Amino acid sequence: MQRYFIQNEAINRKKVVIKGDDYHHIRNVMRMRPQDQVTVCDEDGNVHLAEIEEITATEVRLKMLERLECASELEAKVTVAMGLTRREKQEEVLRRVTELGASGFLTVSMERSVVKAKENSSVLERQKKIAKEAAEQSQRSRIPDVHGNFTFAGFLDFAERFEIKIFAYEEEAKKNDGTLRRILKTARGKSAIVLTGPEGGISSKEAELLKSRGFVPVGLGPRILRCETAPLYVMSAFGYELESENES
Amino acid sequence: MQRYFIQNEAINRKKVVIKGDDYHHIRNVMRMRPQDQVTVCDEDGNVHLAEIEEITATEVRLKMLERLECASELEAKVTVAMGLTRREKQEEVLRRVTELGASGFLTVSMERSVVKAKENSSVLERQKKIAKEAAEQSQRSRIPDVHGNFTFAGFLDFAERFEIKIFAYEEEAKKNDGTLRRILKTARGKSAIVLTGPEGGISSKEAELLKSRGFVPVGLGPRILRCETAPLYVMSAFGYELESENES
Repeated sequence: MQRYFIQNEAINRKKVVIKGDDYHHIRNVMRMRPQDQVTVCDEDGNVHLAEIEEITATEVRLKMLERLECASELEAKVTVAMGLTRREKQEEVLRRVTELGASGFLTVSMERSVVKAKENSSVLERQKKIAKEAAEQSQRSRIPDVHGNFTFAGFLDFAERFEIKIFAYEEEAKKNDGTLRRILKTARGKSAIVLTGPEGGISSKEAELLKSRGFVPVGLGPRILRCETAPLYVMSAFGYELESENES
Repeated sequence: MQRYFIQNEAINRKKVVIKGDDYHHIRNVMRMRPQDQVTVCDEDGNVHLAEIEEITATEVRLKMLERLECASELEAKVTVAMGLTRREKQEEVLRRVTELGASGFLTVSMERSVVKAKENSSVLERQKKIAKEAAEQSQRSRIPDVHGNFTFAGFLDFAERFEIKIFAYEEEAKKNDGTLRRILKTARGKSAIVLTGPEGGISSKEAELLKSRGFVPVGLGPRILRCETAPLYVMSAFGYELESENES
């Protein structure tokens, strides 16, 4: 069933009003009519079954029917931070980590980033749109927060608020000491931030700074992953560890 | 260090001859000279340190220095089978599952595949090239086998040879019963084939046929993954389960 994210203010006593892009989507793309049903997710992550009552020239009016049980959210709030790289790669990663359950996404200008950050609000708007669409398609009940691009120093400050702080570091990969697994086994119910490097990787100076601010280096296995594959591995590992039930 | 895959016949008593594309790469792209060193992987997955002795107008002659210990191969031979979809998506998945350690790759024409298979050897050649490049970049010692496209019936026959046979099935995702984890915990040293569907998913008829031929349905978590994300999740789960050491 088609899924729409709404702001809490769009709800008034079991009635919902949808305007703008989603209105266009319901009316012109899905060609829905009164009595058709959709799923509506509010800002608190609640999911409701709703029925279309009326489609006017500017809005769709719906009636909430019932609240649905919904457990599509990962039981850890994981924010993915990737070294700034080309726009298409960022967008692909954002789309996929949204499917894989990330709660947030940002990029960081790093020593080996080959592109410069653009002071451009359209980049952020585009990313928000991608996050929303991917959340809808993967049937999530929350849209990941898109935070934009940070300087390295700004990122270190931003990261203070997270309970788990890790970064993927090739040098650690060879040790393969199970650090990632040990951390993920304790992640349920926590907030986590995961930094992966740009094409050239994380520099040793950056690694030292990260460690001094409480970040733990983790290996992602013995093969070298591209910068756009590493975040997908980490998010898959979170999902696998937290969502594929143990035998015991 | 730059890595080249060679056929066993290119080796003759500690001497190796490289021609063709790799010759061009060594001479014109990397601009290497005698005494420069490279890593050479033979068809058995052995990795050798080698030194350039001579670069002629048609070939590079190298001397093997020593065999390197190399543990970059996943300890399960996993073949990824995906429902036939657009060429770019197939190629992206092939590239990423190679980084993530897959031993083989193929596509299957399925009920909900929206594209038709092309009788075209250039598709296969292109895929082989992608697999080789991704294996080199991720520092693997083996190139995944690229098997081309199968009919569904042909795929069922091909799959007979594998010890573990699983398919990602959305209907199972909601149960979230830990089947994937139970299977992966027994996968070390085994051969496995993993089928993921095309955009529209695997039909219930196909699911029944798969089960009747020994395939086990597994869920990949509560969110709906795109057809090009599902294989990456499965390969990441294999790597995480087999390569991130347990505490115990």
